[in-house]
Amino acid sequence: MPESPPSDQSARGEAHSVPARIGVLVVSDRAHRGEYEDRGGPAVIAWLGRALASPWEPVLRIVPDERAEIERALVELCDGAEGAPGCGLVVTTGGTGPAPRDVTPEATAAVCERMLPGFGEAMRATSLAFVPTAILSRQTAGLRGRSLVVNLPGKPKAVGECLEAVMPAIPYCLDLIGGPRLETDPAVCAAFRPAGA
Amino acid sequence: MPESPPSDQSARGEAHSVPARIGVLVVSDRAHRGEYEDRGGPAVIAWLGRALASPWEPVLRIVPDERAEIERALVELCDGAEGAPGCGLVVTTGGTGPAPRDVTPEATAAVCERMLPGFGEAMRATSLAFVPTAILSRQTAGLRGRSLVVNLPGKPKAVGECLEAVMPAIPYCLDLIGGPRLETDPAVCAAFRPAGA
Amino acid sequence: MPESPPSDQSARGEAHSVPARIGVLVVSDRAHRGEYEDRGGPAVIAWLGRALASPWEPVLRIVPDERAEIERALVELCDGAEGAPGCGLVVTTGGTGPAPRDVTPEATAAVCERMLPGFGEAMRATSLAFVPTAILSRQTAGLRGRSLVVNLPGKPKAVGECLEAVMPAIPYCLDLIGGPRLETDPAVCAAFRPAGA
Repeated sequence: MPESPPSDQSARGEAHSVPARIGVLVVSDRAHRGEYEDRGGPAVIAWLGRALASPWEPVLRIVPDERAEIERALVELCDGAEGAPGCGLVVTTGGTGPAPRDVTPEATAAVCERMLPGFGEAMRATSLAFVPTAILSRQTAGLRGRSLVVNLPGKPKAVGECLEAVMPAIPYCLDLIGGPRLETDPAVCAAFRPAGA
Repeated sequence: MPESPPSDQSARGEAHSVPARIGVLVVSDRAHRGEYEDRGGPAVIAWLGRALASPWEPVLRIVPDERAEIERALVELCDGAEGAPGCGLVVTTGGTGPAPRDVTPEATAAVCERMLPGFGEAMRATSLAFVPTAILSRQTAGLRGRSLVVNLPGKPKAVGECLEAVMPAIPYCLDLIGGPRLETDPAVCAAFRPAGA
Repeated sequence: MPESPPSDQSARGEAHSVPARIGVLVVSDRAHRGEYEDRGGPAVIAWLGRALASPWEPVLRIVPDERAEIERALVELCDGAEGAPGCGLVVTTGGTGPAPRDVTPEATAAVCERMLPGFGEAMRATSLAFVPTAILSRQTAGLRGRSLVVNLPGKPKAVGECLEAVMPAIPYCLDLIGGPRLETDPAVCAAFRPAGA
């Protein structure tokens, strides 16, 4: 049983009055080249806008399906860069399938110290109720320092399904790693914190 | 979101008129020594014969439970060898349990660049409806270049259960990685391709 | 298909008349410092006491949430140390969540040669019926030589839920790796061995 969660939750200036920064990393060759209007990133932001009841702000980045660029963007979003503070939660959208250019899970694993296999399992199990090809998703999640990184699919509809599956556990996860405190609108997403947490 | 799937799907001569080559790798010390008539390989071939509606041909290999030999056979089946073209789909049978000689999953992971954890999850979840020892299965799946490798169990009955669980997603997976186009008999196995794919 | 299981099951003196040694490794900073009376270890031992019908004895160890110390304790419990024989089954309790000090799964993977992902999947699926935060559990299981290592949560209630999910498969797993033969009380836990095993 670990120590109590880090108590310096405001070290990043993440007290309740300061909006929680949430990284949204769009991984898409075509969106990065401007050939395609990304719909995954807006879907993530719209869903979070409905689900979150505490102040937050998105930090949006778009990168191509290149492992080195994805890794660099994840590191900057998690750790902070150029004077901007890091994000306690970073969600990616796109690049998680079997196509040759899909390397978002590999980039995620490369920058995280510890993995959370339950996120991928839960998202695939949820998607499997809709399409049998859900097993092709290679989505994962992991921890880098005081940040949680979660891979979401690229398709807007699937983004919502996956967020519904995992968001109830995310606020407590952020509590445990010393991230920002998130509150959700229970009508959209019932975040769960164990009694006493 | 990745590029469109590779459009040179016929580069391996895998146009519809050419049978798709499917590797079937039997991993068994006893079958390799001829002490035992393997039943896993025939079960895989019989099941595929019922489920596939497009032309295909099996490429059968039998190796002992030796990691180096399994890896070499997987590489040859995926990449092609001695003038024979590679197989877009390679299924193994046997060697996925906890017994000391069972190393098929380790050999699979060693030759694949990217893993597909959803296959193992789906096969274990399916088998768990039949036997609680399904959690002992260490089956996985992965991608090597333009080939998909899927581990199946050794027991003939379990082979069919697992193929039923994952085959609906395999044709679309092969589309995405530039492999051969497979069609299935919907009465046996309803392959799913997203609209527009 | 592997060789038959090792037939020298009594090599460790694990014939039926000799109690099976089961390692119980409590991973907890506070319990290790004596600031906290560990409840996970007693919960594991009490549950096993109800479920097992063959002779066994617990080998209890308490270590802090330090990866090197967890690894050393796992190696000693599996392989034996100071003249004491090894344990065919080692269960850990604690250290499997996302908190910064939680590194039991990493220590487990580091000392095991082969992993059993089905254990973590089954335990998370079971816990998910109780709490959505079950996806935060990073529990895993693996094989080190002739020993099975299984991570359990730290909370006593969750310990029982997880043991109920995986114990039915553990006796057959130990058979396959040449560990001690365990019998269970079917009223508490119906261990499954395939016909002929």
